[in-house]
Amino acid sequence: MKVGNTHYRSIWPDDSRRGVHIVDQTRLPFEFGTVFLESRDAVAHAIRTMQVRGAPLIGVTAAFGLALAMDADSSNASLEDSAALLNATRPTAVNLAWALKRAVAHLVRLPHQSRAAAAWALARKMADEDVATNAAIGELGAGVIRALHAQKQDTVNILTHCNTGWVATVDWGTALAAIYKAHDAGIPVHVWVDETRPRNQGLLTAWELRQHGVPHTYIVDNAGGHLMQHGKVDVVMVGADRVSRHGDVANKIGTYLKALAAQDNGVPFYAALPVSTIDFALEDALGDIEIEERDGEEVRWISGQQPEAKPQHGRVSPGESGPGTAPVLGFGRLRLLDEASPAANPAFDVTPSHLITGIITERGVFKPDDVAALESAP
Amino acid sequence: MKVGNTHYRSIWPDDSRRGVHIVDQTRLPFEFGTVFLESRDAVAHAIRTMQVRGAPLIGVTAAFGLALAMDADSSNASLEDSAALLNATRPTAVNLAWALKRAVAHLVRLPHQSRAAAAWALARKMADEDVATNAAIGELGAGVIRALHAQKQDTVNILTHCNTGWVATVDWGTALAAIYKAHDAGIPVHVWVDETRPRNQGLLTAWELRQHGVPHTYIVDNAGGHLMQHGKVDVVMVGADRVSRHGDVANKIGTYLKALAAQDNGVPFYAALPVSTIDFALEDALGDIEIEERDGEEVRWISGQQPEAKPQHGRVSPGESGPGTAPVLGFGRLRLLDEASPAANPAFDVTPSHLITGIITERGVFKPDDVAALESAP
Repeated sequence: MKVGNTHYRSIWPDDSRRGVHIVDQTRLPFEFGTVFLESRDAVAHAIRTMQVRGAPLIGVTAAFGLALAMDADSSNASLEDSAALLNATRPTAVNLAWALKRAVAHLVRLPHQSRAAAAWALARKMADEDVATNAAIGELGAGVIRALHAQKQDTVNILTHCNTGWVATVDWGTALAAIYKAHDAGIPVHVWVDETRPRNQGLLTAWELRQHGVPHTYIVDNAGGHLMQHGKVDVVMVGADRVSRHGDVANKIGTYLKALAAQDNGVPFYAALPVSTIDFALEDALGDIEIEERDGEEVRWISGQQPEAKPQHGRVSPGESGPGTAPVLGFGRLRLLDEASPAANPAFDVTPSHLITGIITERGVFKPDDVAALESAP
Repeated sequence: MKVGNTHYRSIWPDDSRRGVHIVDQTRLPFEFGTVFLESRDAVAHAIRTMQVRGAPLIGVTAAFGLALAMDADSSNASLEDSAALLNATRPTAVNLAWALKRAVAHLVRLPHQSRAAAAWALARKMADEDVATNAAIGELGAGVIRALHAQKQDTVNILTHCNTGWVATVDWGTALAAIYKAHDAGIPVHVWVDETRPRNQGLLTAWELRQHGVPHTYIVDNAGGHLMQHGKVDVVMVGADRVSRHGDVANKIGTYLKALAAQDNGVPFYAALPVSTIDFALEDALGDIEIEERDGEEVRWISGQQPEAKPQHGRVSPGESGPGTAPVLGFGRLRLLDEASPAANPAFDVTPSHLITGIITERGVFKPDDVAALESAP
């Protein structure tokens, strides 16, 4: 993805192997800036505080965290402890556990002295794989949009929730990749962008769509049902953080409400995700997925741009480049809810498979019932 | 309702008949302040900008606006023009049209010289009636909560959307009146307060519940479905802006999504409203109710409290009293969405009657199918 005139991935290793660069998503879209992570603990902090977010991206980020841990100490104890520490940063998305399990299985069989180099090589490989996987998801998802366009012969209105774009992955995205590929292929699309409270990832989506030139309209999370009742949504496309073997989808809080509305109005509902998001061991998504309960302060406070404030150059790390070095407006915070009222902040919900039309993966578009077969397929 | 040590209504006429005082809801809950409206046009502006809001309250406010118009010019032309102007301030809630129609029908038959006094007397009467109506809705709604408590023998968890409390009416509220009356009767209740983007009326609800000492937790609009899936909601109670003769309910945008989730999880869903909210002429709620499309700037910008800012005494009108004269923190605005992205802002949606368990009115609790009979009942 290009930001200004520079092609970025969301994460890239430093050639010196001293650390890994990330786009700092806590400042997006108000400021574009990057952070350089030089230790396993810095990586864990970045995942926990959502400087990096999006199920596919946090998996790859954790793999780089493990590489930094191996640089510091390549013992078995370090490998196990580091994987456990990184795995505990976010409980819901399975890609994190999947990436760490894969890395540990690969590294534990190697002699200590070769683990660090192997860990870096594997993390780089996983980053490259993520880009290829998402490009494939995008092509297949664009096929779904193309078919809808063939039926409708008019602009396809796509509602999306949260951010499933470039910054949720290493590059391309999942559901947004489908939209980018459709747009690039000349299919007329318009995207309804859910705000996605409390962290307003819809602002990231709108920012990405602006960069890519895709027509879109930003809406509050409450609006989607009404739009569907009035025929203004042709398809809902979202990402996923964990999918059960029966095709139930855990995704950003509020996804379930949109799936209910889609079903009530005959609007097809798709989740787009890499196969690594499917937890083949998971039978009961509603009962067995741990739904992360985040700090209520994320609900109580809100971030945005301060009008007529001075650029805050100091917020961008020295030596980092990008448009973030010259933000137009300052970055501010306001308190919405009084301290005397408690706030709850569940981060994900589960959409049962019977509300889902199809699951778009890099290996094809499947009915929810058919994803279990991917476990044994090559 | 008491604010600090003073009992307030949301609106009250000045004894001199020079104008009408309102609580300025655009500054709540960050600042408590009142505004004095001295003309029909000031009243229209207050309704349009949501300084007063809530279906029952805007009806009464419009009646005071008509009284101010009659003071200035009691001709038939003034009566008709003023009613039309006030009616056009908000298109969706029927209480506004109902109140104006009632006032015009009463005044048009009177000689010009007695219209002004009669208009003031009628507006005062309608304000008093609203208080009595809401107290009755509260008692009947508390009965619903009492029955749920008798079944559960534990705290009743009530999810509510938007603000249906004291400040949405002249006093008491509708759905919140039921909660206040239940709490006052010693029934243990806990309220899940939907934030209600984009205008965050949930902040008003949390503020009211704090004043009244009712246990509550603030949540984003995305969270309710997840809470229902996990058995954490015993009943949903909302208000209404217009109800069709078949019991379809137009209410704040997002209500429909909560009703879908309630049905999917077997959670009872009630709307509480005065009979004046029922539009007996309305057959097709989804097709025929004009859904107000408000300015996208309400989505793009957000208001809140600025930490460590100085009190802004200047924001409170001279001569007005109340805790608003000494806000603890300043009042600020942030821009969320870049100007380059458009935002849509539909203000209401329609919940079809088949998703509604009961409609709580001052005359009883009815099945949606049975509200039409209220047209002819005494």
